Amino acid sequence: MSMHGPALRNALDGEYHQIKQHFRTALTPDIVVRPHDQTMAEARQWALDSLYKLSEIGYSKVGIPEGFGDDQPLSYSIAAFEVLAMGDLSLTVKSGVQQGLFGGAIMNLGNDEQKQKWMPGVLNMEVPGCYGMTELGRGSDVQSLETTITYIPDADEFEIHTPNEDARKAYIGNAAEHGQLAAIFGKLMVGGEDHGVHCIIVPIRDESGNALAGVTLGDHGLKGGLLGVDNGTIAFDHVRVPRGNLLNRYGTVDDDGNYHSPIEHPGKRFYTTLSTLVRGRISVGGAASSAARRGLTIAARHALSRTQFSKTTGEPVTIMEYQAHQKKLMPALAQAYAFGFAQNRLTRHFQEVRDGADEKTTRELESRAAGLKAVQTRWANDTLQMCREACGGYGYMSENGLTTLRGDADVFATFEGDNTVLFQLVGRALLAEFQSSWKDLDMLEAARRSASLVGNRLIERTTAPSTIDRLITLAQRKKGDEVLLARGWQVEMLEFREKRIVEALGMRMRDVLKLPKEEQFEGFNACQNHLIAAAKAHMDRIVLEAFIDGISETPEGPARDLLIKLCDLYALTTIRGHRAWFLERGQFDGARSRTLTAIVERLSKELTDNVEDIVEGLGVPEEWLNSKIAERP
Amino acid sequence: MSMHGPALRNALDGEYHQIKQHFRTALTPDIVVRPHDQTMAEARQWALDSLYKLSEIGYSKVGIPEGFGDDQPLSYSIAAFEVLAMGDLSLTVKSGVQQGLFGGAIMNLGNDEQKQKWMPGVLNMEVPGCYGMTELGRGSDVQSLETTITYIPDADEFEIHTPNEDARKAYIGNAAEHGQLAAIFGKLMVGGEDHGVHCIIVPIRDESGNALAGVTLGDHGLKGGLLGVDNGTIAFDHVRVPRGNLLNRYGTVDDDGNYHSPIEHPGKRFYTTLSTLVRGRISVGGAASSAARRGLTIAARHALSRTQFSKTTGEPVTIMEYQAHQKKLMPALAQAYAFGFAQNRLTRHFQEVRDGADEKTTRELESRAAGLKAVQTRWANDTLQMCREACGGYGYMSENGLTTLRGDADVFATFEGDNTVLFQLVGRALLAEFQSSWKDLDMLEAARRSASLVGNRLIERTTAPSTIDRLITLAQRKKGDEVLLARGWQVEMLEFREKRIVEALGMRMRDVLKLPKEEQFEGFNACQNHLIAAAKAHMDRIVLEAFIDGISETPEGPARDLLIKLCDLYALTTIRGHRAWFLERGQFDGARSRTLTAIVERLSKELTDNVEDIVEGLGVPEEWLNSKIAERP
Repeated sequence: MSMHGPALRNALDGEYHQIKQHFRTALTPDIVVRPHDQTMAEARQWALDSLYKLSEIGYSKVGIPEGFGDDQPLSYSIAAFEVLAMGDLSLTVKSGVQQGLFGGAIMNLGNDEQKQKWMPGVLNMEVPGCYGMTELGRGSDVQSLETTITYIPDADEFEIHTPNEDARKAYIGNAAEHGQLAAIFGKLMVGGEDHGVHCIIVPIRDESGNALAGVTLGDHGLKGGLLGVDNGTIAFDHVRVPRGNLLNRYGTVDDDGNYHSPIEHPGKRFYTTLSTLVRGRISVGGAASSAARRGLTIAARHALSRTQFSKTTGEPVTIMEYQAHQKKLMPALAQAYAFGFAQNRLTRHFQEVRDGADEKTTRELESRAAGLKAVQTRWANDTLQMCREACGGYGYMSENGLTTLRGDADVFATFEGDNTVLFQLVGRALLAEFQSSWKDLDMLEAARRSASLVGNRLIERTTAPSTIDRLITLAQRKKGDEVLLARGWQVEMLEFREKRIVEALGMRMRDVLKLPKEEQFEGFNACQNHLIAAAKAHMDRIVLEAFIDGISETPEGPARDLLIKLCDLYALTTIRGHRAWFLERGQFDGARSRTLTAIVERLSKELTDNVEDIVEGLGVPEEWLNSKIAERP
Repeated sequence: MSMHGPALRNALDGEYHQIKQHFRTALTPDIVVRPHDQTMAEARQWALDSLYKLSEIGYSKVGIPEGFGDDQPLSYSIAAFEVLAMGDLSLTVKSGVQQGLFGGAIMNLGNDEQKQKWMPGVLNMEVPGCYGMTELGRGSDVQSLETTITYIPDADEFEIHTPNEDARKAYIGNAAEHGQLAAIFGKLMVGGEDHGVHCIIVPIRDESGNALAGVTLGDHGLKGGLLGVDNGTIAFDHVRVPRGNLLNRYGTVDDDGNYHSPIEHPGKRFYTTLSTLVRGRISVGGAASSAARRGLTIAARHALSRTQFSKTTGEPVTIMEYQAHQKKLMPALAQAYAFGFAQNRLTRHFQEVRDGADEKTTRELESRAAGLKAVQTRWANDTLQMCREACGGYGYMSENGLTTLRGDADVFATFEGDNTVLFQLVGRALLAEFQSSWKDLDMLEAARRSASLVGNRLIERTTAPSTIDRLITLAQRKKGDEVLLARGWQVEMLEFREKRIVEALGMRMRDVLKLPKEEQFEGFNACQNHLIAAAKAHMDRIVLEAFIDGISETPEGPARDLLIKLCDLYALTTIRGHRAWFLERGQFDGARSRTLTAIVERLSKELTDNVEDIVEGLGVPEEWLNSKIAERP
């Protein structure tokens, strides 16, 4: 073991250290290490078997409340999921479908009786289930689902129907082979009136695996990865279920056949129903980072042992020593830490909301969950591909694990919300925030003209404001290029970028709203790239603040010193990645911009001295690496 | 068919239109369309069967000279390979191993007798063969191969030996199952003297598929893609072959057991031997682009038919209409055209060298082949991943073709030269050019100081200098932001960037050479990122020049007008991608930089009106798309 690895791992685990350590041991390799050469059929069976084992060791009950689970905080289930994802992603996703999505729908949308009826079977895997939201033709546009859930007064039942081929439920995990029950989302129709999207439990398959009458189940077959997840389609031909199957927290049909909802406004009801997705999004983002951590661990180990060519003196050179290789691996390792701290904080944020937070905190959770899911899954894809290439021919052989990881993680950019759609969701939340803090936009313009908009009124810091202010003040005392390594300067840069992008976007959007309705689509559409840029700028700042908090919670010592350097590398790589934006706005000059590059190269080189510590700190159990090149000799 | 598609395709095919069209028809779907759900065993058999069919329809003989093939120009084989790669990449790679690498080794390194002996069997597939260069432990460092080819005077034979596990030949196509002969590279030892890397033909397997005595064959099994290629390892335990098996163009052992070579200097001999790789590199780069073209065709068709959400007026919106989607697809389509023209030009360059060009042209071919291989394979990987994500959940299902394409194309970044290594090769060639044009580097520094280095002496234009000069003069007459759409301005920007980067690199390298030997490694290593940046800047400029030539060879009309716009999009996207570099050096200001972004967005939008033409112009046969979502309703 390396000297500072354990301390780094503890810091990165943060407040979830105990639960994470528990599962690093409890999830034995026979549960989480999947052979690379399985066929699809073998992989599906393996994942199902492992899912039962997850139940047996108590994984499935972590954080499940109300006596169904272990009654720990629900956020612990997210932390446990993050650990599971360091093992196999098929198993992770299949467990996410079963406990997170299917079970989550029942826990979040059902009443006590419904929970009593279904949750035990969900958690002990007696009843494998599906989460039937996505339709083939609708994709991200969940509000337009076409599946109907129609109340039939005569029979006091609901009828589930798929009106056309495009309305089939698609990509549904557990649908192709193992699912018996499904939580199906569709338009609730009562007495001819459309009450919008609701969720209902529908049996789809008997215990011998045959589709029930009126249910057509399809198999998507081979995919780009996640071979162990049996994704399929579900279609209903006027299938009847008892009235009591409607998960009725936000909408119910009473004994007299009348619809009631605690939320009057249909739009608000829809968003409240959908807000139950948030745990899934947080979990998926963290899982993608876990996969990238495993890839980075494999690639870094390879880089430390592989030699290529030799020095002018004849000595062999490990590929880790090459500047171009450091450029590939080191900023990615720093980013892994940054996301780790941001994920911890988001998980805590989730718990705060569960424990009863104000509306603003709840709204922010939605937006940050979407944003952190999008940035982590994008990064995981890029990083795993980089790791594959950094291992050359070895990287392409399945036995070394990287191609499976990349194939599995790929779809994380799409499911639980397409990244491009999620960035827009974040962007719109920022705009709303902007608009509410500047009710009168014309006043803002006046303020701009008088150049008085210099404060941070648009930025809601997540770190204690006094901490950031102190850092900024400290930075102002630095001279010359020293300032680049001052945390306050780094924060200021990212705050400035976010603020300016959101502000400019707000102005453009205001103009669009003044257009005639038929021209507004084009107007909004012309701002789409801008909207996405705003979301990304926001997430960069949020992630840096989380890193700062993570460091402040780490005891002084060598591990903390390494974190400080990793944070510099993260922050400066991020600022450098957007240096064109800063240069365009004269925020720094060309000379400083070039200094940024030099410092990033220097930090990347210096940190290679501790690459073993840094990799070990990522917390991927040695026995889970499932990679021949990563085995120690 | 779209209105301008055929004209665009003809323009993009360029001088290879006839041969490409021939194979678009001759390669029937039963030869090139591989089912997505094959197991590895099925895929390997399918590829072998299809390889026989390629022989039958005459594909394998295209461009093969000296009476063995059809005696067309050898460059036609590269064009035909580009077309084949629009079908299945396993088949493409397997045919590349057989005819390109194995056959190429015999044609390039063998004598007449050897060609007579082996070439017929290579081309009619009677003798499946291997190209045994890479060793597990050596990777890109071919000069350090450890396999030995030792002359045994008593027997007048060569003994092939693998001295250790790391010296096994690795990733060798055809080695795991089908190969019977192998062209093995190793150190030639004669009378105890090491004559460097030579190539020898060694039987490895009998016709029933059993490894021959002393030969150990391994199977790499599953990989990240290319399931149809049976990659494996080869090791030799003192295996004897007749003296006549040494391919002896650049080195031979005579009847008296003495070594002779027409190339005295061992280093030069090594590089001459390796220069036979150039056709492979050119082919691989083009094939990667072909794969990306197929991916883009699938993604663009999907984008035109898929609707998501609706306009303010209630109309559905195709995803092609969204700005964020245009940002993904349109610059990639422009880049596909840019690379297509660059690949045509490189192919012609190859033919010029074969027909007997001067040393400089030959040297430039090496460098451009390496560079264009690296940039095309990098781009293909990124583009195929983008296409996968742009098709959402559909994109992840194997039946839609994108995940197979991405998995197959992945390793193109590694084989035929790791991209990072190749970029350095290009960078070093630029440096050598720089040094030879400025023999006395101190004089250069003096010249710089006096600010007289304003000409283009460092840039060797590939397009007729008068054409470029005319364009630059025209550009100088443009006012304001109009200049951005002047081709001359675009060329000047890319020329300036290349020149400045190479020049600065030259200065740094000069300083490194003044260091004591033991410090030089660190010095060179600190310039590695800079070296790679130089190579990329060079390739950007070379590719733009090829696009300009391609347009000038296209008859006037709507297709040409579209090409002009696509070239603008390519050039401005490229310049925009490096705008930080230009801003750092004050080459343009922040306002102009932001205008660049606006123009790229505008061009991306405008070109969507012709996206069907543009996609059809990529020239991927409809029946080869092998993608459910790309089928026309």
